Amino acid sequence: MLLIADNLQIANTPLARAIAEEDPAPLQELVRRCVASGADAIDVNTGPLPRDAARAMRFVVEAVQAATGLPLILDTANPEAMAAGLAACRNRAIINGYSLEPSKIEKMLPLAARFDAEIIGYLLRPDGHVPASASERLALALDLVDALKQAGGDAGRLIVDPVIGPLMWENGLDRNRGALEVLQRLPELLDFPVRTIAGLSNLTAGAGSRPQRLLVERAFVPMLAAAGLDMLMLNIQHRETVCVARASRLLRRDSVFTWAALDGDCR
Amino acid sequence: MLLIADNLQIANTPLARAIAEEDPAPLQELVRRCVASGADAIDVNTGPLPRDAARAMRFVVEAVQAATGLPLILDTANPEAMAAGLAACRNRAIINGYSLEPSKIEKMLPLAARFDAEIIGYLLRPDGHVPASASERLALALDLVDALKQAGGDAGRLIVDPVIGPLMWENGLDRNRGALEVLQRLPELLDFPVRTIAGLSNLTAGAGSRPQRLLVERAFVPMLAAAGLDMLMLNIQHRETVCVARASRLLRRDSVFTWAALDGDCR
Repeated sequence: MLLIADNLQIANTPLARAIAEEDPAPLQELVRRCVASGADAIDVNTGPLPRDAARAMRFVVEAVQAATGLPLILDTANPEAMAAGLAACRNRAIINGYSLEPSKIEKMLPLAARFDAEIIGYLLRPDGHVPASASERLALALDLVDALKQAGGDAGRLIVDPVIGPLMWENGLDRNRGALEVLQRLPELLDFPVRTIAGLSNLTAGAGSRPQRLLVERAFVPMLAAAGLDMLMLNIQHRETVCVARASRLLRRDSVFTWAALDGDCR
Repeated sequence: MLLIADNLQIANTPLARAIAEEDPAPLQELVRRCVASGADAIDVNTGPLPRDAARAMRFVVEAVQAATGLPLILDTANPEAMAAGLAACRNRAIINGYSLEPSKIEKMLPLAARFDAEIIGYLLRPDGHVPASASERLALALDLVDALKQAGGDAGRLIVDPVIGPLMWENGLDRNRGALEVLQRLPELLDFPVRTIAGLSNLTAGAGSRPQRLLVERAFVPMLAAAGLDMLMLNIQHRETVCVARASRLLRRDSVFTWAALDGDCR
């Protein structure tokens, strides 16, 4: 299970100003902190990028990859910015992402084949709503594969996101158990070794600074790991959660057990 | 998921002396601490009880149930002591336990029908060894049910223990994943709502005081919960583990999500 830092979120932060001024230092400092905290990849979430989005994304990608050779997950809803970011990216690049919404199929999905990039597909209905059941999610996964193939993409480049939702929403518990079920059943449904990704912070969205928030997240991480999740997106500064994720990864290993897989700060 | 305190272990502790002197106070103090820490049941592990085992078990059960009305899990390999404990028990009582070993089938298993008690059945081979695969474990579960029925017991009184093993043993990781698989598949295999139990401390047996021991246990608890475990036996004084278990239980609830399910000390 790879750990992907979701810390680089540019909208409404001091980073937005650094980008407007084309100052790479604050971005690079944050990226170096993520790398030091054990990130296996960096999610580059630029938000809406109101002005000159392509130029801004190119600047961000160049700044980040000057600081790390880790894979980058480019996270913008703006297809022009995505294309510019992919063109600038020398690191392994993952498009985040597409769904069955017509605008995504039309504008975002073709970039996967054009840039030979991996792409995250969300298990959402074409109208953007969340599916009601695990079986509907599985059907949507098949549709995502079909759409990717029709756009000239390689199904092996797909990374499925079952879409973790806020626990406090109606049916929040049921929905997230459904996400676990999908993670577990996807490999036997698809005829290729599909990979999966999930964003942890959404689980407790709306909980504010409630102290139990991180406890519930830490309990959900091993469930995701046991269900076979390949990539976990999280705040990589949440040290205890990162340690639980490492211990979960260790429990999933095929090889022999070794304490060395947990670093000295984790206990 | 009920949390069962495994703290009351009498062999080689100051408690052994209290029992020899028939002084209930140290036992009761420990039991009250377990109750205050949130135990849903108490495992009464008397160990071998070398002299006058039946009398000692009777004393322990009476001492414990004077301090709590929680269910008691009577944990001794001595059938006479078990019978004496069951006879003395006014609380809900669970026999811990039996396996397909001939001596257990002959001496321990009949006590379930005789005292109309619940009984824990271990997924071990008749020679006491650990099964090699999940499918062998499932076959052993069917044999446990057959043996219980043949002894006049009610299959609905069975609680299956998939036997968590030390991670550091050869195939430790594989074996414990097999235990998770069994927990998940058991309900569809058996034609009644079978319950399950697992002892957490065995996971890191042999790890000494290594600080990562509790981290690995905390990562395994949500995996057990997600696999459907009904009863988790653990050191109820391990506060962080208890909180993770509560958060895991919350994530499994069928009802709506509520933060109130986590007590104020858990964060």
